[in-house]
Amino acid sequence: MSGAALEPQATIGILGGGQLGRMLALAAARLGLKCHVLAPSPDSPAFEVVHRVTCADYNDTEALDRFAADVDVVTYEFENVPAETATFLAARVPVLPDPKILATTQDRLAEKTFVGGLGIGTAAFAAVGQPAELAAALAHIGRPAVLKTRRYGYDGKGQATIRNGTDPEAAWREVGGQPCILEAYVPFEREVSVVAARGTDGNVECFDVTENEHRDHILKVSRVPAALSKAASQEARRVAEVIAQKFGYVGVLAVELFVLRGGALLVNEIAPRVHNSGHWTLDGASVSQFEQHIRAVAGWPLGKPIRHGRVEMINLIGEEVADYRRWLSVPGACVHLYGKAAVRPGRKMGHVTRVFAE
Amino acid sequence: MSGAALEPQATIGILGGGQLGRMLALAAARLGLKCHVLAPSPDSPAFEVVHRVTCADYNDTEALDRFAADVDVVTYEFENVPAETATFLAARVPVLPDPKILATTQDRLAEKTFVGGLGIGTAAFAAVGQPAELAAALAHIGRPAVLKTRRYGYDGKGQATIRNGTDPEAAWREVGGQPCILEAYVPFEREVSVVAARGTDGNVECFDVTENEHRDHILKVSRVPAALSKAASQEARRVAEVIAQKFGYVGVLAVELFVLRGGALLVNEIAPRVHNSGHWTLDGASVSQFEQHIRAVAGWPLGKPIRHGRVEMINLIGEEVADYRRWLSVPGACVHLYGKAAVRPGRKMGHVTRVFAE
Repeated sequence: MSGAALEPQATIGILGGGQLGRMLALAAARLGLKCHVLAPSPDSPAFEVVHRVTCADYNDTEALDRFAADVDVVTYEFENVPAETATFLAARVPVLPDPKILATTQDRLAEKTFVGGLGIGTAAFAAVGQPAELAAALAHIGRPAVLKTRRYGYDGKGQATIRNGTDPEAAWREVGGQPCILEAYVPFEREVSVVAARGTDGNVECFDVTENEHRDHILKVSRVPAALSKAASQEARRVAEVIAQKFGYVGVLAVELFVLRGGALLVNEIAPRVHNSGHWTLDGASVSQFEQHIRAVAGWPLGKPIRHGRVEMINLIGEEVADYRRWLSVPGACVHLYGKAAVRPGRKMGHVTRVFAE
Repeated sequence: MSGAALEPQATIGILGGGQLGRMLALAAARLGLKCHVLAPSPDSPAFEVVHRVTCADYNDTEALDRFAADVDVVTYEFENVPAETATFLAARVPVLPDPKILATTQDRLAEKTFVGGLGIGTAAFAAVGQPAELAAALAHIGRPAVLKTRRYGYDGKGQATIRNGTDPEAAWREVGGQPCILEAYVPFEREVSVVAARGTDGNVECFDVTENEHRDHILKVSRVPAALSKAASQEARRVAEVIAQKFGYVGVLAVELFVLRGGALLVNEIAPRVHNSGHWTLDGASVSQFEQHIRAVAGWPLGKPIRHGRVEMINLIGEEVADYRRWLSVPGACVHLYGKAAVRPGRKMGHVTRVFAE
């Protein structure tokens, strides 16, 4: 089912209760829309900012049924929504973006094949279904190469680098002995991302290209604009737009790209959701990625993003959240905390945005 | 009781469930803080954006007791909190700003007397406790004059102008025959306001002076910066700061001022709360009035407000809310809807902010 434009009193159902779901709900609230969050964990951060919550597993069909009956459209904050959940809901209420897209983005092999099919560059890759296929794949891709699980990897989990001395079978065991993709190691100069929104009317609006700095495989700092040539920047936005259009996407997606010396771009990954590298838009632009997503799934026109200046977004990871008090006193720093009670290493606890005159 | 700085997991209690309470709760959510809203109406807009609500009258001591037990600090979105409610809660949990301030701001006579006592100009005024005092007051103030109820007036309600031909007793009946204040009519050139925050540390931060345009006694447009001389602008901020300091205020207050030809300022009114003329700060400044208020009542440092440009805020009143779809398509326009189901003439349904390069 695809949806007509929602009335301002409508209710958006959000699958997932983390900080992305929380910030989506806050954006919906600005627009007068209600949200109902479904998530399995009782201490989901998104529960605190909405009046209607369902605390249930994603395969609890009774709960899903009640949830579907209460909402006008369903969207999600994460890409690993079980296919059965999406199918169950889509039979009852519009689900946006279309769950069929998840089949592509949940599988690194399908995703890279899709991107390559659009004539857009990626790292060289080969499927590795079982250890016996490792040698041939390595011969094709060369070393160094990165072995990644086809499914469920994020923040560097489910990845192993195979260098000259590495035993490929050890890498296979390291990632859990499951269907993989072997990718050529890309000697990139920088990592950038484009956060783009596509509306039900087919209009696409891209935020400015963002440069991303990772630490221990976790995003640490985003800077906008990225230090790219105008041509590379336009090409990055074009790539995101082509992907969004080809998917017939509705909502916000992020395309992560490697920038090679000389400016060539390779797509690393597509996230079919709002993305950490777009958090700067909350304070640094006239419309945020969260509001764009809500506008899109509501069938409302997208905003035209106007950037307020040069922007820097810094993630507060694990114990770094204790810095919030210092950040509160920094002139112009916008502090966001996600309301997570338990501090764990590597856990995203909040972020800080700074906007500077350009 | 006065409070220590809250932990990020703390809960703020908000009395009142209108759009101001809603936007306060959204600001608290950005900072990771939880909110519990108490309001009498089941369709209170603020209920939709928090997980914990109490739907009860302000004199329901059982409900107030449970509310107080669940929150770490109490604040309010409106100035007419019954004194008994504030006293009841203050015995159980910190209430900020101090409810004692309400005794002054709930009564126009007490408020004007307080402001005058600080050496700050107001319109000439006289108390009118009963019709027999009207003649003497009019002789003192002159015509035209404005008869206002001492309590509960807002958006032009509870006011009557006494011109040359007006029968004073008719004006008395018009405002409901209750204790009044008679004020000299001020031939102002413009109306401005200063929204100021004071923290528990005594630090005061003022937002830039805002120029306000009313229609049928309801705020229609705010523009920042106001068209004032630098001296007048500094004086307006000084006045707001003196008032905040003299009250020992904690939180956000707004001071409405008349600007006379030549630039002299007269205080018209103090609102001991976040204020419609400060809504522009949500999109036009590095910290909003709502976040400043939450920071203050949480005992956290105030933000240093940095304005993103020239800003215009337009209220969507009554049926004008239907314009939201047109506004969604205006580049750079930030649309806010308050989630009110019933449209009524004069009801504030939402607002739009536009930020322009200066």
